[in-house]
Amino acid sequence: MSAPVYERVALIGLGLIASSMFWAIKRGGLAGEVTGYARSEATRDTARRIGLCDRVCDSAAEAAEGADLVVLCVPVGAMGSVAEEIAPVLKPGATVSDVGSVKRSVINAVAPHLPDTVHFVPAHPLAGTEHSGPESGFAELYDNRWCILVPADETTDPEAVARLRALWEGMGANVDEMDADHHDLVLAVTSHAPHLIAYTMVGVADHLRRVTESEVIKYSAAGFRDFTRIAASDPTMWRDVFLNNKEATLDILGRFTEELFVLQRAIRMGDGDHLHEYFSRTRAIRRGIIEAGQDTEAPDFGRAAKKP
Amino acid sequence: MSAPVYERVALIGLGLIASSMFWAIKRGGLAGEVTGYARSEATRDTARRIGLCDRVCDSAAEAAEGADLVVLCVPVGAMGSVAEEIAPVLKPGATVSDVGSVKRSVINAVAPHLPDTVHFVPAHPLAGTEHSGPESGFAELYDNRWCILVPADETTDPEAVARLRALWEGMGANVDEMDADHHDLVLAVTSHAPHLIAYTMVGVADHLRRVTESEVIKYSAAGFRDFTRIAASDPTMWRDVFLNNKEATLDILGRFTEELFVLQRAIRMGDGDHLHEYFSRTRAIRRGIIEAGQDTEAPDFGRAAKKP
Repeated sequence: MSAPVYERVALIGLGLIASSMFWAIKRGGLAGEVTGYARSEATRDTARRIGLCDRVCDSAAEAAEGADLVVLCVPVGAMGSVAEEIAPVLKPGATVSDVGSVKRSVINAVAPHLPDTVHFVPAHPLAGTEHSGPESGFAELYDNRWCILVPADETTDPEAVARLRALWEGMGANVDEMDADHHDLVLAVTSHAPHLIAYTMVGVADHLRRVTESEVIKYSAAGFRDFTRIAASDPTMWRDVFLNNKEATLDILGRFTEELFVLQRAIRMGDGDHLHEYFSRTRAIRRGIIEAGQDTEAPDFGRAAKKP
Repeated sequence: MSAPVYERVALIGLGLIASSMFWAIKRGGLAGEVTGYARSEATRDTARRIGLCDRVCDSAAEAAEGADLVVLCVPVGAMGSVAEEIAPVLKPGATVSDVGSVKRSVINAVAPHLPDTVHFVPAHPLAGTEHSGPESGFAELYDNRWCILVPADETTDPEAVARLRALWEGMGANVDEMDADHHDLVLAVTSHAPHLIAYTMVGVADHLRRVTESEVIKYSAAGFRDFTRIAASDPTMWRDVFLNNKEATLDILGRFTEELFVLQRAIRMGDGDHLHEYFSRTRAIRRGIIEAGQDTEAPDFGRAAKKP
């Protein structure tokens, strides 16, 4: 265990991401004190009960005051108003960061509120589960996951970026840097479009009249189940993601629809060679993900299941 | 351990499904002898080396001869020719079954070849992993998974159906019965359409020029990873599924596209309420799947990962 990276860290918003940060910070001894704030009184009560944060505050400003690092862990659509609320109390020289899944719109919403005396280093940890809330966090969430730092502009202090990098590495993550627009495109491909597609497929199953909901649920192990896991993610967070990464998501969805139509046509025309060649290519991408350490080879469809 | 359900079982085709059946049959003491055949000599050699099947034969007819149950475990497109090949040697009173993911076209392809002296009871175990081949099987694959029996017509001997049900229950599965057309529609929703969609999304990521393949792979944990697992399934098996369940799959994909367009429009128009409501509904379906015992609540996106 090394010296703390920051003397005081404030977490604004206490859901899955913030609570996992807290436990990872404690595991690594990365901060002297961690304060926390959540808008909902019930969440603050839960946090106090389970020992989430060294000190749970009753306002965002109280939590942020005097902190060396303030991390905004609220839905993307709420970032701007939280930044406005804490701006007056920010300590000169402090760093403000966030964990939003979209970066350009967060920068646009937050930067105008911040005083020149603080550093703004947006970030996005690529980790999560389908659960949400203060009790869903765990210290290992970021181990060997990527965290992308997106410095707001070229004037960002390199020292502030390096310190935030050290915090994320201390929490177990691998850190990359990227500009905001490229981040938003990469995430549209690897996360935002897949989520919308999963939500859609689960919605289709729900609407069908000739297949009952209990049949869909009983027989989900055949592939559908993995879609439902993705489609169980936090609705508020995802609404804000789509509204704030509109162009890149619609671009990828447009390409997806084109591609789907080509495969549908191959099915309709009975073009087996086209299908086989396509499916063989996608299998190779899976191999790359296992080799990159972002998944294990352990078979998943056959996972141990509870007795009903 | 009870008395064997069948004296002799023959498995034609030795991939993931057949090899898991063998280990599950052995675990349960469900058959006196299990013979096996695979078209590829390399697969037969592997089977002999790892002890898969009590006796590995060099032709489908040799494996099927004298068996009380013959299970066709080959891709859907190969079922007809295998049935033709084994028909002359089938023992009177024997049962022929299969494990294909599509049922109407398998019945159409297989039934005409079978003599009146045998019972035909098609089946479909809803279990699998993204791996394939004789070494991918394991005894627990069917534990608490569903197996759907689809008696070819109303004249099927109830005694033959009951015996096949006992075998699948002995291998750990829950058994349902359904007619072929309903089966094909249910599976189009829960399995075939989700697979095609996952294949498509993985293909889109592969084609993008502005996002490199290594970025897609590195950042896959954000949602895309679960699609690649589905899209890594056996290409030959899936080509045959789509070509043989054409109408139901295209029907579901048409509904999917409509629904996707409505959500795309909500994103474009900034209709956050519509998105939030939709995403909240899909979350409830996930809850139903966990309650039905077809998945665990353990968070999956944050699963333990190997160091790269």
